[in-house]
Order: sequence, then structure tokens, then C-alpha cells
Amino acid sequence: MARMMDLSSYTDASPGGAAVILAVGQACSEVERRVSATLASDLPPVNTLCKHLEQYHGKMVRPVLVILSGLATASTNGNEKGPVPDAAVSLAAVCEMVHLATLVHDDVLDEADIRRKTQTVNRLAGNEAAVILGDYVLSAAFALCSTLGDAAIAETIGRTGMTLCAGELVQLHHRQNLSLDERTYYELVKRKTASLISVSAALGCRVAGGDAAQQARLGAFGEKLGIAFQIQDDLLDIAGDQRVVGKSLGKDMEKGKLTLPVIHHLAAASPAVRGRTLALLSEPTQRGGAGGQGGRADLMEQLETTGSIDHARRVADTLANEAKLELAWLPESPARQMLSLMADSVVSRAF
Amino acid sequence: MARMMDLSSYTDASPGGAAVILAVGQACSEVERRVSATLASDLPPVNTLCKHLEQYHGKMVRPVLVILSGLATASTNGNEKGPVPDAAVSLAAVCEMVHLATLVHDDVLDEADIRRKTQTVNRLAGNEAAVILGDYVLSAAFALCSTLGDAAIAETIGRTGMTLCAGELVQLHHRQNLSLDERTYYELVKRKTASLISVSAALGCRVAGGDAAQQARLGAFGEKLGIAFQIQDDLLDIAGDQRVVGKSLGKDMEKGKLTLPVIHHLAAASPAVRGRTLALLSEPTQRGGAGGQGGRADLMEQLETTGSIDHARRVADTLANEAKLELAWLPESPARQMLSLMADSVVSRAF
Repeated sequence: MARMMDLSSYTDASPGGAAVILAVGQACSEVERRVSATLASDLPPVNTLCKHLEQYHGKMVRPVLVILSGLATASTNGNEKGPVPDAAVSLAAVCEMVHLATLVHDDVLDEADIRRKTQTVNRLAGNEAAVILGDYVLSAAFALCSTLGDAAIAETIGRTGMTLCAGELVQLHHRQNLSLDERTYYELVKRKTASLISVSAALGCRVAGGDAAQQARLGAFGEKLGIAFQIQDDLLDIAGDQRVVGKSLGKDMEKGKLTLPVIHHLAAASPAVRGRTLALLSEPTQRGGAGGQGGRADLMEQLETTGSIDHARRVADTLANEAKLELAWLPESPARQMLSLMADSVVSRAF
Repeated sequence: MARMMDLSSYTDASPGGAAVILAVGQACSEVERRVSATLASDLPPVNTLCKHLEQYHGKMVRPVLVILSGLATASTNGNEKGPVPDAAVSLAAVCEMVHLATLVHDDVLDEADIRRKTQTVNRLAGNEAAVILGDYVLSAAFALCSTLGDAAIAETIGRTGMTLCAGELVQLHHRQNLSLDERTYYELVKRKTASLISVSAALGCRVAGGDAAQQARLGAFGEKLGIAFQIQDDLLDIAGDQRVVGKSLGKDMEKGKLTLPVIHHLAAASPAVRGRTLALLSEPTQRGGAGGQGGRADLMEQLETTGSIDHARRVADTLANEAKLELAWLPESPARQMLSLMADSVVSRAF
């Protein structure tokens, strides 16, 4: 597994804690195998592309959430150490596949060349193959989901696919909208990013036997964590190191997607400062615009003048803390601690 | 409803026949309403695009197959006149939505401007919006499918999505492969076109209570009809009238997709004739290549020298007749007659 969510700061060396760490790690490997097995085809041109996708597994945020949420739910009945049930592994694979499909299509839309330090599918095999492969992966997610024997889960996954696409369409609609306000931004991010993360936590609880109220609480945890995750992504697109992040950066700016620091900055800056920033944002990447390396540094300087990077960091931290409060009802357990740690990790990550 | 499958040559004026015609027509209107209701969003940028898709409903081949297959199955129990059950309407809407999603994405891949005599989504709103909208529609199909209360249907729809994408990927792999043989062509068409048509007939039978053997027979009917349908599409791409067909033509040639007449021709032609055809195929559309209006006429002439248009017509006719034989087990009923008529109509259509 490539670079799973960093849970290494989890220091509970008790037998219970070690068992849960082991269970999560094993389940994640099993998720990767299940994704590969579900995508496998007897047709070589299909299989080659699916094999390439195996390098796309990254932080495994959604699968880890499904698994930990399930273990935390099980802990309410005194059963917290795993093994992770097979249904949770399949559900985690479904959530990961929906995410993979969106990555493949996002890279087409963003004309991105690099993903997880490897070539994107569009770069490797062209836009056409990437569009079709994304559909293939999305269909595979739904096919696997239907084997879980719970129609409500399948319907939720289908509806979540709609929600995240709706979020992306609204984002596209607001492209180059330099007066986008923070409220609209949060609504958009809730849909395009937080919806699947929230559903991963809620459904992980459901397959572990959690009731509707418990699912809703873990869903709220996932939603807050998801918004914080996107804000950190926004920050990395501006201030991250491409070699560390492992994907094309500056794409938000290049594609006219306003990110939280920029939205805050444009609302807070003096007319003169605002003017300079707008010039930077409208300049093509090749001519020193904010999409390129030099342009990103210039943009950073502008953003610092209004404290907009700090503002975005603060919002992300607050959301991570609020997310942790959603866990308060759960009994103390290694899984709960690790969920809490995920919330911290989401906003402190450098990739 | 735009231009549904032409069943007007159905001349059974008996009360039973008239009732079935009425039931199919009403069910198709209901299918369109269900598709619209499933896609509807409270977000204006999403809704505008979904509204545009309402113009995409065409021959309604898949919904009509679901409905007629269900009615024909019901006739085995002496109940053939409808009304069409609600589950069949939802299933028909699911099959139509999967089809709509592939149309939206195909138009991106083909850079097509016209579909059903209206602008394509990519033309209207750009490739990015079209890619996301296709994902939205596909997700909506799966969400609706999950409400049917039959996990086997949901899994089949998911797997069919995979199959048709796999077919498209193999087609892409063989692009510009001028030695593609007929056998590979049929395998490819079975996947990319016939799979969803076959499944529409088989699952229409299933929701009407048909057993596995009956589903398989109607599935076989749909598969043969589906291959014949694609061959007729191939013929229209070369020999059709764009004003009548209502979509961009010459796209197969332009995109290097070999169609049955061309495959037959390249295998049958003398080296000299073959050379001329290859030159025509490799020439860009703008410079008189086979993708353009003049080029299409030149290609037609070439294909006539080897009787390749006739060959493709003959294969399509044979498949349509074989499809009809798959209906032999069904008791005589208006629905069975209309299925039979669909097989004829698929190969005689001019759009």
C-alpha cells in the first residue's frame, strides 16, 4: 500500500491498540485486492489500464474511514478488535472505486499529467481511454455494491455519486467567478469532496450494525473532516511541494477554481492589492500566472498580506476539532482514537 | 416523446392489440417522466443540463424492449395487456439513463456537435460539463436501480456498465487497426452495443416474473437485435442522410473506427482498390477524407465494388431473423408481434 493515511503517531502500545492497527492495515491490503479483483478483465486493453490504476491508491482516506468507523461502532458492543467483516472490506472497496473514478475523470478535466507520482491515465492513454475507464470503474463500484445485500447502501452510493457530480458542475459554473463567497464555497465543497467521505464513515457504521442516529453522527464527523480535507488540498495546491504532494499543482488556479485562501483574500484585500492578485490569477501559467511555480510564490506573498493562508488553516483546524467532538458519544477505544487522529492528520498532512 | 421506435406498421386492430399499443406508449411517457424526476436537482446549473438531456430521448429502444419483453412474459400466464407494472417503468428508465450517459460521453470522445437534431452537451456546455454530467446520469441510473428491491438486477446493470465500457476500450485499442477481422468486430459490438439492449430484454422478462431460461431467451433476442442495430448504425454513418439521422455522421471514419462494411471491403478488395480506400480513410475530413460529405460518397463507391454494403445489410437481416426465432417459445400475443416488428424495424430504419 502506497502512502496510507499516517496513523503512526498512534502510540497505544497496548495489545488492544496493536490489534486494531494490524486489523486496519490488513483490511486495507484486502481492499486493494478486492478493487483489483473487481476491475480485472479478460480483455488485455482493459486490464492494462486497470493495472495502472493500482498505483492510484493513496492515503486510502475513505477505506480507512469505513473500517475505523465500523470498528468504533462495534466497540459500543464491546467488540472492537476486528477482524474487519467482509462486508466492510467490500464497502471500503466501493468507496475507494467511486473515488478512483472521480480522480481519473478529474485528471481529464484538469489536463493533469501526474497523479500519485505516476502518469495520469489521460497522459498515458489519452482522454478518450480515461473517460471510458472512469465509467468502467464507476460501474464496477456499483456492481460490487449490489452484492452487499443492502439496497439502502447501494442507493446511498448512487445518490452520493450524483451529489459529488452536482458539486463539480456547480464548481464549473462558478469558474472564474471572482466574487464567489465563502458560504457558496462550503456548500460546493460539502458536495464535491465531503459527501463521499461522510458516506464512508456513515455506511461503515451501518455495516457494523450501527443505528440511524449513530450513522448520522459518524456521517457528521466525516463531513467536517471532508471539508477540512478539501481546504488542506486547496492550501497544498498553492503552497505545497509538488515532489512531496505527488500530483500536478497550481491546477486550481490554472483552471479558475477559486480556493478558500483566494476567496478570503479577494474579499479582504484593498482595491490595489486585489487588482494585483486578479492580474496574477488571469495571467496564463506559461507567462508567470498563478498556475506556475513562480506565479504560485507570487500569489502566496499576496495572500500573506491579508492573512488568508492563516485564515484557511484556522478554518480547517476548527473543522477538524469539531469533527472530533462528533466522536464524543463513542466509548474510549483504539478505533475512536485513530478516527480522532485522522482528523488531525487531514489538516497537518503535506501530501 | 421524440421519435420512438416505429411500431406504426403494427396493424392488429383487435381490442387486445390496441390496448398493448396504448400501454407501451403510456409507459414510455412515464419512463421519460421518471428519468427527468430522477435527474432533477435543486441546483440550477445541474438542472439546466438535465433539461437539455430531455431532448436526447430518441427511439427508446431499450425502454420499449423492457416493456414489451415484460408484456410478452406476462402473456405466458395469460396476462398480456398491461398496465405496465411500476417496476418495469423504473427498470426501463434505468436502462435509458445508462444509455443516455454513454451518449453524453461518446459525444465528447467523438467531438460530435449534433445529437437528436439538437446541440450535444459538449457543444453546449463544454467537454468538462459533459464528462461530469455523464457521471451524474450513470450514478442516477444506479440509485434508481437500487430502489427496485432486486439486488441481482442492480448487479447486472453495474456489470453491464463494465461490459459496455470494456467494449469501448477494446474499440479504442483497435482504432486505425486496418486489419481488424469480422470476428473481433462482432465480439466488440456484442459488448459495446448489444450488452445493454440484451439486458433490457432479459431484465424486462425478469421483473415480469420470467424464470432464468425465459430471461436467457429474451436476452438472446436482445443480443442479436443489438448487433443488427449496430450494423445498421454503421451503415447510416456511411450512407445515411444527416438531416434524417439527426446526429453528426462520418464520425466512425473520422475517428478511425472500422465499421462492418469497411472491414468486409478491406478483406475482399484487390490490392489496388484497397490502396485507394486506405488513402480515403487516412485523409483528414477537411481534405476530402471519408469523414466528410464528399469523402463519404467516395467511400460508398469503393464499398460498392466489393458488395460490402450489401454484405453488411445481409448480416443485419440475418441477425434480425435469428432474433425473431428466439421468440418462438412465446405464445402468440400483441407484445410478441411487436418485439418481432422491432427486429425488422431495427434494420430498416433510416435514423
